[in-house]
Amino acid sequence: MSEIAAAEPWAVRELGLPESAAALRQAESVFALANGHIGLRGNLDEPHPDGMPGTYLNSLFEERDLAYPEAGYAFPERTETIVNAPNGKPIAVTVDGEPLDLRSGTLHRHERVLDLRRGVLTREAEWTSPGGVAVWLRSERLVSFTRPSVAAIRYTLRADAELRITSSLVVNEDQPAPSDDPRASAVIHRPFRAVSHDRDALVHRTRRSDLPVAAAVTHTGPPGEIETEPDRIRWTTTGRGEIDFEKVLAYRWNGDGLRDEAVADRDAAARDGFAVLADEQCAYLEDFWRTADVEVDGDPEIQQAVRFGLFHVLQAGAQAGPHPIAAKGLTGNGYDGHTLWDTETFVLPVLTYTHPACVGLALRWRHATLAAARQRAAELCLAGASFPWRTISGPECSGYWPAATAALHVNADIADAVRRYHAATGDDDFMREAGREIVEETAALWAEMAYLDDAGAAHIAGVTGPDEYSALMDDNLYTNVLAARNLRLAGRHDLADRLVMRYDERLEVHQQAYGFTRLEEWDFGADHDYPLMLGQPYLNLYRKQVVKQADLVLAMVIAGDLFTAEQKRRNFAYYEARTVRDSSLSAPVQAVLAAELGHLSRAYEYLAEAALLDLRADGEASGDGLHIAACAGAWIALVMGFGGLRDHDGELSFAPRLPPALPRLRFSVRWRGGSLRVTVTRDSVTYVAHDDLVAFKHCDREVKLPAGESVAFALDPVTDLPAPQTPRPPAPRPPMSRAAT
Amino acid sequence: MSEIAAAEPWAVRELGLPESAAALRQAESVFALANGHIGLRGNLDEPHPDGMPGTYLNSLFEERDLAYPEAGYAFPERTETIVNAPNGKPIAVTVDGEPLDLRSGTLHRHERVLDLRRGVLTREAEWTSPGGVAVWLRSERLVSFTRPSVAAIRYTLRADAELRITSSLVVNEDQPAPSDDPRASAVIHRPFRAVSHDRDALVHRTRRSDLPVAAAVTHTGPPGEIETEPDRIRWTTTGRGEIDFEKVLAYRWNGDGLRDEAVADRDAAARDGFAVLADEQCAYLEDFWRTADVEVDGDPEIQQAVRFGLFHVLQAGAQAGPHPIAAKGLTGNGYDGHTLWDTETFVLPVLTYTHPACVGLALRWRHATLAAARQRAAELCLAGASFPWRTISGPECSGYWPAATAALHVNADIADAVRRYHAATGDDDFMREAGREIVEETAALWAEMAYLDDAGAAHIAGVTGPDEYSALMDDNLYTNVLAARNLRLAGRHDLADRLVMRYDERLEVHQQAYGFTRLEEWDFGADHDYPLMLGQPYLNLYRKQVVKQADLVLAMVIAGDLFTAEQKRRNFAYYEARTVRDSSLSAPVQAVLAAELGHLSRAYEYLAEAALLDLRADGEASGDGLHIAACAGAWIALVMGFGGLRDHDGELSFAPRLPPALPRLRFSVRWRGGSLRVTVTRDSVTYVAHDDLVAFKHCDREVKLPAGESVAFALDPVTDLPAPQTPRPPAPRPPMSRAAT
Repeated sequence: MSEIAAAEPWAVRELGLPESAAALRQAESVFALANGHIGLRGNLDEPHPDGMPGTYLNSLFEERDLAYPEAGYAFPERTETIVNAPNGKPIAVTVDGEPLDLRSGTLHRHERVLDLRRGVLTREAEWTSPGGVAVWLRSERLVSFTRPSVAAIRYTLRADAELRITSSLVVNEDQPAPSDDPRASAVIHRPFRAVSHDRDALVHRTRRSDLPVAAAVTHTGPPGEIETEPDRIRWTTTGRGEIDFEKVLAYRWNGDGLRDEAVADRDAAARDGFAVLADEQCAYLEDFWRTADVEVDGDPEIQQAVRFGLFHVLQAGAQAGPHPIAAKGLTGNGYDGHTLWDTETFVLPVLTYTHPACVGLALRWRHATLAAARQRAAELCLAGASFPWRTISGPECSGYWPAATAALHVNADIADAVRRYHAATGDDDFMREAGREIVEETAALWAEMAYLDDAGAAHIAGVTGPDEYSALMDDNLYTNVLAARNLRLAGRHDLADRLVMRYDERLEVHQQAYGFTRLEEWDFGADHDYPLMLGQPYLNLYRKQVVKQADLVLAMVIAGDLFTAEQKRRNFAYYEARTVRDSSLSAPVQAVLAAELGHLSRAYEYLAEAALLDLRADGEASGDGLHIAACAGAWIALVMGFGGLRDHDGELSFAPRLPPALPRLRFSVRWRGGSLRVTVTRDSVTYVAHDDLVAFKHCDREVKLPAGESVAFALDPVTDLPAPQTPRPPAPRPPMSRAAT
Repeated sequence: MSEIAAAEPWAVRELGLPESAAALRQAESVFALANGHIGLRGNLDEPHPDGMPGTYLNSLFEERDLAYPEAGYAFPERTETIVNAPNGKPIAVTVDGEPLDLRSGTLHRHERVLDLRRGVLTREAEWTSPGGVAVWLRSERLVSFTRPSVAAIRYTLRADAELRITSSLVVNEDQPAPSDDPRASAVIHRPFRAVSHDRDALVHRTRRSDLPVAAAVTHTGPPGEIETEPDRIRWTTTGRGEIDFEKVLAYRWNGDGLRDEAVADRDAAARDGFAVLADEQCAYLEDFWRTADVEVDGDPEIQQAVRFGLFHVLQAGAQAGPHPIAAKGLTGNGYDGHTLWDTETFVLPVLTYTHPACVGLALRWRHATLAAARQRAAELCLAGASFPWRTISGPECSGYWPAATAALHVNADIADAVRRYHAATGDDDFMREAGREIVEETAALWAEMAYLDDAGAAHIAGVTGPDEYSALMDDNLYTNVLAARNLRLAGRHDLADRLVMRYDERLEVHQQAYGFTRLEEWDFGADHDYPLMLGQPYLNLYRKQVVKQADLVLAMVIAGDLFTAEQKRRNFAYYEARTVRDSSLSAPVQAVLAAELGHLSRAYEYLAEAALLDLRADGEASGDGLHIAACAGAWIALVMGFGGLRDHDGELSFAPRLPPALPRLRFSVRWRGGSLRVTVTRDSVTYVAHDDLVAFKHCDREVKLPAGESVAFALDPVTDLPAPQTPRPPAPRPPMSRAAT
């Protein structure tokens, strides 16, 4: 039986073999390795019928048609789906002629460890075959942060028997059928046609999108036989007692001469060997953690989870440029491998303050898709650019427009990510070459969408905000506020100033959208299964006051300067009572505002819900990939929530307040040329600047801290205020088994 | 070249052979023959590559899956599509071995006449073959109103040559590919599997829906050879000089023993022969026209069109029970053969006052689908019954829920048709056995949908009204008003009285829905192709003040007693300026209110637009079937518009006013046991009661008119008021060629 072991500060450890298909697939996601460019799901080395094989090359997708029961003008006709790329992971073993299948015989020990400082996944197993042969195996796997095209495996097998190892690179392997869940991916079977094959590499093209890919493989160690065919390279070695080898993979899928480039990358990596690759990996991560790490005293699970989350955010983004950072990173095929607004709104803020280089590249990717966004705007009879709700290479890939095309806020989210990145880094080249145009084109879209009423107030009608249990509303406050900021960035202050924030004078709360607060209340007394969308028609969800995920609350976080404290307090209580958190994007945002308003225990619960989402033992929703935005959410809840980080108006500010359970929080923020280490305790906060002077605000007090200096402030004692009512209490801590290690 | 000849009062005549595929298909719809039970498109006898073969048996459908790019809870998974049933029309000819193909050789004359009093389609052609043989042919075709399962053809061919005639009954024939238009039907190829075949009949079942159908055929006249195979019965005769024969078809597709029943029906009809069938047809129609005819002096085209429309409404409804009356009747496969709200709102009112027997049956069909409607309501987590937006046998078949499932008004439309039918006929058996339950179950739906605000006013949120360029609005006035009436019918007066009618105090007009009047105006100055939906995304249509079709205006017609004259005037002017009539359901309604408000010439223009829609020479939109609701629309515009018929509160009332162009209008209305003939001239109106006393109102004056008596009233002179501005002027009279006859 598989258990996630007790939380360790720098590792995720699994004991035993996952028992169910769901648990196996969750583990494949949790133990996925990626560098933003290539990603290997944490499949077992040897074949397993319940697994979902996954090797993803960023933006290597196949096209397929979208069919509608009733078509409509400008409904996208094609979509893009990430494909399972040539898979270099399979290593099959026989022991005295018996296949190594850990489900048979006796499994004495099976342990996998993801080391967050080394960036290596290690596996060890002790097993007795049905025929009575005792076997010991160990494998290590890495996807190199420093060599974007390279992955490597080191494999050792010991048994007093005749051993036979068949290690493969395989293309067009069988894929399990997709689930019925609307959020699942389509599965494209046999996506590749063969172009060439030899002992070193396979070259293929996707059948319809016609994208080329070259995959090279080599094995070092004992002598072996190589067989090659169009969809497979197979290396076989035999021996007795012990076999020890290294397998190096290299992928190329952009440009010309791909085969030779892949072979050259492979050769360089194989020449250096696994140990060198692992050392490079370790050094890269040491550099990352130096200015990205978050230390949490008092809660080992949160400590582990925030590092796990940051590690996966890094794995999603590190070498993603010039490609996008997808909602699942490269950990699974969920959402078809698409990139959504999650990236700009949840993932890029974290990377902006921890690893800004890849943020510039991610936004340059958006800029590279501007032609498609302009074309989409023209299709929609709008001006400027309309970025897609879901895409891989740029075109709109979403097939349900009320929750996609109508969610135009993605454009303002992108513009705001540009603003944040530029403010935090001062990267003027980026702004001149890419950012400025994004801001102007999205502002042009808002200028077209907005209209003035007779009183001169501006409105945006018929759009969908972050809350997907409402749709096609007028004056969604989040959209209006972000659009106004987008317009101001483009210098269109007059229109920006006119955009309304709807307020219900009777209830004294802002309206999520025009009329929202007078809709029928949802009957939270009735029994409901969550997420509601799987058992309730949109017809009911849309017409009632039930909120899928933070919407107005997100506006109060991102644009908190537009609200008074009293408004925030009243608004939060009102929407908290109507928000069911059926999206993983919700809890981190609610955590931040709850912390700001002094509902510290509630914030802490939401932090845990977000942080442990993908690690929890019942995390079946992670089977088709991790929620990278929720991975970022742990950082958001801790740093923006308990650290009180805000970045309104291009200024960095902090207002720390810890929940009762946490005695100490330490995090770092990259800002311009420097970085700031912030250490929060119950009664004080200490800021230390590194590398360069850092200017920021502590609770409205301006601070300019030269490199190497520190400043400390006493913190007023905080009262943990009772939290507002919520229809769906924060998830209890998941059953994370405390297995003996 | 094909031309519709000058309007004749009782016939539609085509001269020449349609030149384009579009014109051919339009003619196939115009010349379709049906009795509500079976329908034969007006295909030529001999094969033509551009035609769309169509033989429809009411409710003989195939199922197919609906696929969604992004599925949602309670999205229908299956739909139903009318299939092209066993086709008994084909008659192929060779003349001295040359095929009779009127596109070759020389066509001297080709004429088709649909005789609206005889119910027979006659065709004559004079043609010289490429080989120089002069040929004369004549065919007559009827679908019997009196024998629901029977159709018959009489065919004569003359030429001084060797003649060979092959007459077929054919199953699974090839169908042309569907167009890209979202309103077009799916085409199901080869929908049948064979069950049995013999010289007399073919028995098949649809492959997936597994519905049985038996088709029998016989030929009388000269001796012939019969060949039979699973998908075909072929009768061949040869001769010289002249061949004259009759072909009788009979179809059965409900119950057991279908083959023998079909053969028996066929035998009885063949024994009587075509002449007897034609006499019965004539007698049936004489009876119909006696109390249904509308006479229009001063406009031969309108005169023809209103009779053509009534004839097709009768063809759609006469023998439809126990099946539904589809939006295209049985004239084509448009809308997949589905029944929509058109039936209850446009077609049944006309039949209620002209041929009420089939209205009771049509509503009993709705009642028979109540189990499906209850199940649908439960699926939607609602109470009572939710009738489908589109269906053949009962389940929801629509795949775009914002304009379908959300258009819950269809439930109130059905309830209102129940109310109207019962008020007009006093059919208490129907009410007890079917009507009452429909009313109660739909009222239960509204009781669930409606909610009370703090002030005690009731609202219905998130629904779509008749205007499909708005969706998911709150308090759609049409829906609220019809739902209130539905609730009152069920005795739920308190809730009914609370439902709001939204009013814009500033503009002094009612709001089509909450907030509608403050949305952005549509830019009608820009060039637009109509219908807008083919070139504009819903995203733009929904968020602006552009109205596809009468919505609030329809409410002011159906529930006109809820509005003051001044409100009607202001509302009409406001919505007239924003309504583009992209639905054929719009013009008749606008005609009625325009007439009531004294915009008589505008009403007359809208009458023409509606009445001539399917007859106009450029009527390509009729290729996949006639718009049966628009056929009803001519009657609606004349009788409700210029006759001023209303039926609020179960009372029949009239307020006649003729437009300047029409000196006289005469129509009849069936009411309870009697009928009322109404003759309107410029200065007077005369009412004559037949069969029974008729109670009605003339311009607020109560009249009780015994059978056989008449009463006349002087009419005040009317002023033809200037019409409000409209963005899309009424269609000019179509180019109906005045060919010499």
